[in-house]
Amino acid sequence: MAETNKTALLVGAGDAIGAAVARRFAAGGYSVCIARRDPAKSGALMEELTGAGRKVHAFAVDARRETEVQELCERVEREIGPIEVCLFNAGSNVKKDLHETSEKLFFKAWELACFAGFLVGREATRHMLRHGRGTMLFTGATASVRGGSGFAAFASAKFGLRAVAQAMARELGPKNVHVAHLLIDAGVDSPAIHQRMADRGIDASEIAPDSLTKTSSIAEAYWFVHQQSRDGWSHEIDLRPSVEKW
Amino acid sequence: MAETNKTALLVGAGDAIGAAVARRFAAGGYSVCIARRDPAKSGALMEELTGAGRKVHAFAVDARRETEVQELCERVEREIGPIEVCLFNAGSNVKKDLHETSEKLFFKAWELACFAGFLVGREATRHMLRHGRGTMLFTGATASVRGGSGFAAFASAKFGLRAVAQAMARELGPKNVHVAHLLIDAGVDSPAIHQRMADRGIDASEIAPDSLTKTSSIAEAYWFVHQQSRDGWSHEIDLRPSVEKW
Amino acid sequence: MAETNKTALLVGAGDAIGAAVARRFAAGGYSVCIARRDPAKSGALMEELTGAGRKVHAFAVDARRETEVQELCERVEREIGPIEVCLFNAGSNVKKDLHETSEKLFFKAWELACFAGFLVGREATRHMLRHGRGTMLFTGATASVRGGSGFAAFASAKFGLRAVAQAMARELGPKNVHVAHLLIDAGVDSPAIHQRMADRGIDASEIAPDSLTKTSSIAEAYWFVHQQSRDGWSHEIDLRPSVEKW
Amino acid sequence: MAETNKTALLVGAGDAIGAAVARRFAAGGYSVCIARRDPAKSGALMEELTGAGRKVHAFAVDARRETEVQELCERVEREIGPIEVCLFNAGSNVKKDLHETSEKLFFKAWELACFAGFLVGREATRHMLRHGRGTMLFTGATASVRGGSGFAAFASAKFGLRAVAQAMARELGPKNVHVAHLLIDAGVDSPAIHQRMADRGIDASEIAPDSLTKTSSIAEAYWFVHQQSRDGWSHEIDLRPSVEKW
Repeated sequence: MAETNKTALLVGAGDAIGAAVARRFAAGGYSVCIARRDPAKSGALMEELTGAGRKVHAFAVDARRETEVQELCERVEREIGPIEVCLFNAGSNVKKDLHETSEKLFFKAWELACFAGFLVGREATRHMLRHGRGTMLFTGATASVRGGSGFAAFASAKFGLRAVAQAMARELGPKNVHVAHLLIDAGVDSPAIHQRMADRGIDASEIAPDSLTKTSSIAEAYWFVHQQSRDGWSHEIDLRPSVEKW
Repeated sequence: MAETNKTALLVGAGDAIGAAVARRFAAGGYSVCIARRDPAKSGALMEELTGAGRKVHAFAVDARRETEVQELCERVEREIGPIEVCLFNAGSNVKKDLHETSEKLFFKAWELACFAGFLVGREATRHMLRHGRGTMLFTGATASVRGGSGFAAFASAKFGLRAVAQAMARELGPKNVHVAHLLIDAGVDSPAIHQRMADRGIDASEIAPDSLTKTSSIAEAYWFVHQQSRDGWSHEIDLRPSVEKW
Repeated sequence: MAETNKTALLVGAGDAIGAAVARRFAAGGYSVCIARRDPAKSGALMEELTGAGRKVHAFAVDARRETEVQELCERVEREIGPIEVCLFNAGSNVKKDLHETSEKLFFKAWELACFAGFLVGREATRHMLRHGRGTMLFTGATASVRGGSGFAAFASAKFGLRAVAQAMARELGPKNVHVAHLLIDAGVDSPAIHQRMADRGIDASEIAPDSLTKTSSIAEAYWFVHQQSRDGWSHEIDLRPSVEKW
Repeated sequence: MAETNKTALLVGAGDAIGAAVARRFAAGGYSVCIARRDPAKSGALMEELTGAGRKVHAFAVDARRETEVQELCERVEREIGPIEVCLFNAGSNVKKDLHETSEKLFFKAWELACFAGFLVGREATRHMLRHGRGTMLFTGATASVRGGSGFAAFASAKFGLRAVAQAMARELGPKNVHVAHLLIDAGVDSPAIHQRMADRGIDASEIAPDSLTKTSSIAEAYWFVHQQSRDGWSHEIDLRPSVEKW
């Protein structure tokens, strides 16, 4: 184990925000551990970063399983280095009329976006407390602060995750663990959103430039938060395009 | 079935808030259905209200079970009358250090305070939509808007319930179903709190008068919200004692 | 002076909200004092209420003048009765592009909606503290919590008034003075709004029924707040039509 | 005039936050214009920055006077360069019991912290719109979002300033002017706070390290916000020490 090998653990890190944060922290000298359900999907990113001389590792995890999360954190600590920063980024947007929202959908939205965030936050900060420092980051959304029509399941999960972040921040701050929540009040410029638009017959050229938030901009916000000195920490930062209505 | 027998369904109605709301709506002419896990515990309240000539009925429900909630609503509609107002009042306060918060505790806090609220809200409003009107009420707490240290589990559940209430309010308001959330930012004057204080060696006489919110005051707030005409609905009301720090 | 003549003082009480609150508190047995810049404009209301056997009095006040506000409160206390409840209801909505907003407009919006509220709140509660009880009510709007495009002046004034209400509530609550702020997130069903709509060529028949909040619904909310017992006070209540987007 | 001489204008820039922001933007290559009522007070800072080879200029302005603010902006544009970023940092904390708060104190708190902010924001962004870009920054405080007991005057002014920032952000964002508000929920590590503590007999050695936010940390937050690309702008960022209760 390398005590000096500063390590970033990204959980629920897919091809959009997760990949951008991986690039940013790898560029900043971190050993980046990318954990997702199917690590094979990170192949291209691994190749890109390794090719650029970055230190990057892929892990498999189902973040909704307590023992998997515990083992992930322990393995990262043992094999890679002390977790200095951890990002929880899982959760998938879903919109349904209330009376079409099954208990299964409600549970799954919560399990992935909120419960897994609790597990990852609890386990990662356990190691950070031991090290005497660390940064725990959570990705939020418009639905973290607004329960819109059709969002009973998703907003409930995201509100719940925000509460987890607040409770962690207040308990762990005085112990030198920085917990922050990023409120992304925007569409994120990702393959997924372009696909959804294409499905609805919208051509990419019709989208106003800069009307979607770039994943690199999100990564910069996380990087900034992680760099803050403990006399002045941000616990919640909003982010939206200049043209967004809010 | 009696279309004209206006009915209030109170779920998670124990001996504190639930009993007071039962008294208030019974006094207001409602057939009151008190649903809790062990209806035998409502015996004294049933006797009191029946003795006073009120219409009151006890039901058993585990509000975390979808089919039980569905059957409860259907049975109330069939046997008692159309549900005009429903209160979801379950959820129990719990405070634990983050690293002492087990996944079981986190799940249970959510299942009772948030998931059950979703089920009850969804099923009760299904009937209200059919009737073309109704009021759906949710009990909130300080932890509904503040994730305090030690409250990762409870605040997460209560934040989540508030999101459910907001999403329901926005979707169902235009369909004439009034959804409201009461933020009780206070200790509630209940047998439970007096017991907790006694356990900590605090004598009731040491508590400043009116420093705990009376359940009857909470019941009046619910009654007021239910009486509002549709041109001016409240969706969130706070409530705290005059001496409370906030 | 009649110590037992319970008195409501309404400042900035025009023909819409002010008149409805006057009717409500007069019906509830209060001597109602209606104070506005030009009391002659309250002639019809005075006639209506006097004709109905209510106790009602009209006063002239420019609420932006400290001495006028002080003299008003003293005169009401001396001639009518102890001020038990006071409503501050002045302020007029204005929307302007930022670079069209003159310093004069910005100042006037603040002077009327915020500064006058501070003066009225400070002076009325001075008497309430002496009596050992009272209720101080402030009318808020969407712009009290949202600085929308074009609302730099109006939102700034309304945000400022809300801060005054909060600071008063926290300081005076423990001294048994109840301070509350009503967030009216709606168009108010008033002659003024119908005139504005007519000016824009909108026929009243095109407006969805109940899509404007009735002044009587607002008055009921104020009446409810004033009736609350000190163990459970509301400090902020929202109000909007069932069909409102929010 | 030098179109390429990118310029930062800091208004209400004293020896604490203002000086730190001056250092940060000067280090980042900006011509920094420091405007305060008595520019002579910036002598030491001017010397320090000039000695380090930075471009820095001192201006006199009473930011509560419309013509002075207009002339300041015009002079900076003419003599120094296009205003790319402007910070409004005036306002001074004051705590008073409600009934000790004179109309003069209430007015002065508003005039300095809110009205001057409106004037500076309006005038600086007028030039930014002409240039097609710019960043307008406002310094907020705990009192921007909480009206605490004793803070009727100060919180009212700071709430009002926040409304100005929001309204500007929503109107000017789509025109490529970034408006942001920094919520400093902390004591700021400044000569003034050390003096206040000394006055109360508190020795600096008794203050927990990092329990006051350093002005350099605040300056980094402003620098970060100014660097954001328009696809992902923050409009409100909180900042507090790790040990702060909130």
